[in-house]
Amino acid sequence: MQRYFCKEKINNQIILYPDDYHHIKNVMRMNIGDLIEVVYNKKVYKCEIKNFDCIEIIEEIKSYDEDIEINLVIPLLKEQKMDFVLQKATELGVSKIIPFYATRSIVSNIKEKEDKKIVRWSRICKEASEQSKRNTIPVITNIKRLNELNIDGVKLVCSTCEKSENLKMFLQSQHKYDKITIVVGPEGGLTMEEELKLNEMGFKSITLGNRIMRVETVPIFILSILNYISME
Amino acid sequence: MQRYFCKEKINNQIILYPDDYHHIKNVMRMNIGDLIEVVYNKKVYKCEIKNFDCIEIIEEIKSYDEDIEINLVIPLLKEQKMDFVLQKATELGVSKIIPFYATRSIVSNIKEKEDKKIVRWSRICKEASEQSKRNTIPVITNIKRLNELNIDGVKLVCSTCEKSENLKMFLQSQHKYDKITIVVGPEGGLTMEEELKLNEMGFKSITLGNRIMRVETVPIFILSILNYISME
Repeated sequence: MQRYFCKEKINNQIILYPDDYHHIKNVMRMNIGDLIEVVYNKKVYKCEIKNFDCIEIIEEIKSYDEDIEINLVIPLLKEQKMDFVLQKATELGVSKIIPFYATRSIVSNIKEKEDKKIVRWSRICKEASEQSKRNTIPVITNIKRLNELNIDGVKLVCSTCEKSENLKMFLQSQHKYDKITIVVGPEGGLTMEEELKLNEMGFKSITLGNRIMRVETVPIFILSILNYISME
Repeated sequence: MQRYFCKEKINNQIILYPDDYHHIKNVMRMNIGDLIEVVYNKKVYKCEIKNFDCIEIIEEIKSYDEDIEINLVIPLLKEQKMDFVLQKATELGVSKIIPFYATRSIVSNIKEKEDKKIVRWSRICKEASEQSKRNTIPVITNIKRLNELNIDGVKLVCSTCEKSENLKMFLQSQHKYDKITIVVGPEGGLTMEEELKLNEMGFKSITLGNRIMRVETVPIFILSILNYISME
């Protein structure tokens, strides 16, 4: 059943976003009487299309919740790679994406376009959340500088300098945690200065092993592993 | 240092593929005297460009070898997704990619174009191997039907039916292995018939957990986990 995140719920009536009415009617070519899943406030409802202005809740559906909060801090990437990371990270359960200005990032100041970008990125995450049947949409923050990261919980930075402590050693040494934040560097890596600053802020430097991965592969790599660890 | 897989090695002289001479000269704009890394027969050599017809070995470089043989059996995907899987799987250490005709695959008979496709796919794997500094290039076999898979070692199929045994339980129950083969289904999954046939052939059905992933995400997910497990 197709899933949509909705704008509002008034009693047992659902108000969707304008784009989604269009999607239901013209892309999915659904009809009166067809059923959809609607998410509101982390709850999932089976709903019936009474007419294209009126979507009615039939019942609540049991749904699966994220166990831990996973935050990804990623450099600005070229559009296609950024879109890729947002889509895949959403599929794999990321909670929050914090884009940051990295010294060596190819994409630098986009201050003027920031609001537009965030709207675009959020739309990609909403669509990927619907596709992968999540009941939350990852939050995308505004673009930060590293010293603006004010985060608690377990904190990691993917280092190109650190050679001894790897991700596995680190994760195995942790007690149960409910929040983890990972900083990924740009192509060419973080500068020594950036990494030291992060270490001072409590981010532990770890290596991902001997592989040389493209920047956009790293978030997917880490999220896959975090999913594996939480398998029971 | 830029890495290239070479065509031939005669004494201490290296013969590159025609495309790579072009890449060195016109894309990388290298000059006489510049150094490159060249891989021949799983060995890596530091080489000097003496002139554009003559590349000379200076010394062998110590290089990192793949621990286990990982084979991926994947359905035919649309071009962009296929390219994505080939590139990312190469980065993450796949040994062999076996495309197969799945009942529910969107892309079906490409028999006439098969040879051309395999040349194209192999080029993507070669480039990704160079980029990620591997010293082997994944092998791409011709397109198989499921009953043509004749493989030993540990064998898995990513199931959409199996609910109890997950990837983690399975991998933790295994003794050390040096070869693992994973079958990934197309969008919509394998048919019950296909899965049963694979089970008969010794492939164990496992679930990847509760997440709903796009087909192209699955190989990356599994390869990331296999890398994690082999971290020491």
